[in-house]
Amino acid sequence: MRKPTITKDAGRWFLTDYIRPEVNWRNTPQARGEAPLPMQKPVAPSSELIVLAAPDAWNTPPCDLATAIARRASRRRFRSSPLSLDELAFLLWATQGVRERLHEAAVLRTVPSAGCRHPFETYLCVLNVAGLVPGIYRYLPLDHALTKERTPADLAASLTEATHGQGFAGGGAVTFVWTALPARSEWRYAEASYKVIALDAGHVCQNLYLACEAIGAGTCAIAAYRQDLMDQLLGVDGAEEFTVYLAPVGKV
Amino acid sequence: MRKPTITKDAGRWFLTDYIRPEVNWRNTPQARGEAPLPMQKPVAPSSELIVLAAPDAWNTPPCDLATAIARRASRRRFRSSPLSLDELAFLLWATQGVRERLHEAAVLRTVPSAGCRHPFETYLCVLNVAGLVPGIYRYLPLDHALTKERTPADLAASLTEATHGQGFAGGGAVTFVWTALPARSEWRYAEASYKVIALDAGHVCQNLYLACEAIGAGTCAIAAYRQDLMDQLLGVDGAEEFTVYLAPVGKV
Repeated sequence: MRKPTITKDAGRWFLTDYIRPEVNWRNTPQARGEAPLPMQKPVAPSSELIVLAAPDAWNTPPCDLATAIARRASRRRFRSSPLSLDELAFLLWATQGVRERLHEAAVLRTVPSAGCRHPFETYLCVLNVAGLVPGIYRYLPLDHALTKERTPADLAASLTEATHGQGFAGGGAVTFVWTALPARSEWRYAEASYKVIALDAGHVCQNLYLACEAIGAGTCAIAAYRQDLMDQLLGVDGAEEFTVYLAPVGKV
Repeated sequence: MRKPTITKDAGRWFLTDYIRPEVNWRNTPQARGEAPLPMQKPVAPSSELIVLAAPDAWNTPPCDLATAIARRASRRRFRSSPLSLDELAFLLWATQGVRERLHEAAVLRTVPSAGCRHPFETYLCVLNVAGLVPGIYRYLPLDHALTKERTPADLAASLTEATHGQGFAGGGAVTFVWTALPARSEWRYAEASYKVIALDAGHVCQNLYLACEAIGAGTCAIAAYRQDLMDQLLGVDGAEEFTVYLAPVGKV
């Protein structure tokens, strides 16, 4: 990725919508009739899928919305107890779960996304989830399943190093890491994609904060990380797919 | 605001955290010992405040978190019924309400914000809220109150025009408009402020989506708007404070 010069002016401009009139809307991939990117990154043919329990099968205790909002806090200290696989399924459903599949390019989820592009993949650095061997997994929303991606030697230490020494990054039961595949959004929005991708990542993470409250867990999102190390840890290319946000989760 | 060149490379780079090592952390306003910006834009001395009901005084029906997440959808068609002032108070509390005031520069809210900077002001384009004269109000989180900002001639039509003809922008009971005051974040994060401001706006808006579900209302966020017209409508300068996101709310 070629480095631009980010001045204060450029940064502020990025947050405005002055970009929209500059886009050549007749020449976006969508306008040219190109196919959109798959809404879920494919898995290798030999991969085993770990199918997760559906919403009606969880025993997640009821949790009042206003109470969850009132109690939510940045939580950086976690108990050593594991997360259950059903609790993890609930958190994944709450953040990227599929509500309805209208057609190939319109898969409605539990979070909103500009133009229904949903430009993210969810990686899980699993440290202490009952029934899962530690390692890096990826959530497959269309299958509501997990696939194992890799098994780094010292995952917790790698997370700490990749977040400038923030020990809690690898101190919970599982660390959510969201990557962006910007081409999913660029297909429709071209140069007007980038602000909305960041807004969308905020939507996703807020649902994680609230869902954690329902299961006696907590999180504190991390936006300060070493881009190269995080991308290497996940095994993504850093250009067509790269880390945008992290959230360690643990029981509190 | 001087216009930069937003290429695909620059836009994608903006979503990474490659900016962080480039910041001169010894020369941020915070590191230089400068005072942070006020966490709430001051009101004119003669302004009347409309104090809102506190959380324990609402009659908001209980709403299960998982149900709210499952039911949330993009809602662009609204019934003509008004929102009550207590319902509006609930939505404001859920999106920017104060949980705890630690000190001048650390006011904890119902949503997370990078470095607790909370770089937003919430404007309300009130069209149909019982007990409020239509017009533009601003939420004062530290006082949990509203202040009237202005009374434009044709608010609903102005909102439609400022959102490229999206009629639902002025078709609900109230349209939330969030502005960013980037200097609040720049005080701590300098050039690393802009991505996290967009992430933070996503956190805020997601709570609005969910809180709407609890009161039989709905919303659909709008990121496509005419920057100059929106800023003029609110009466903000477009440089130190500018519109970043909108969300019309109505009964469904």
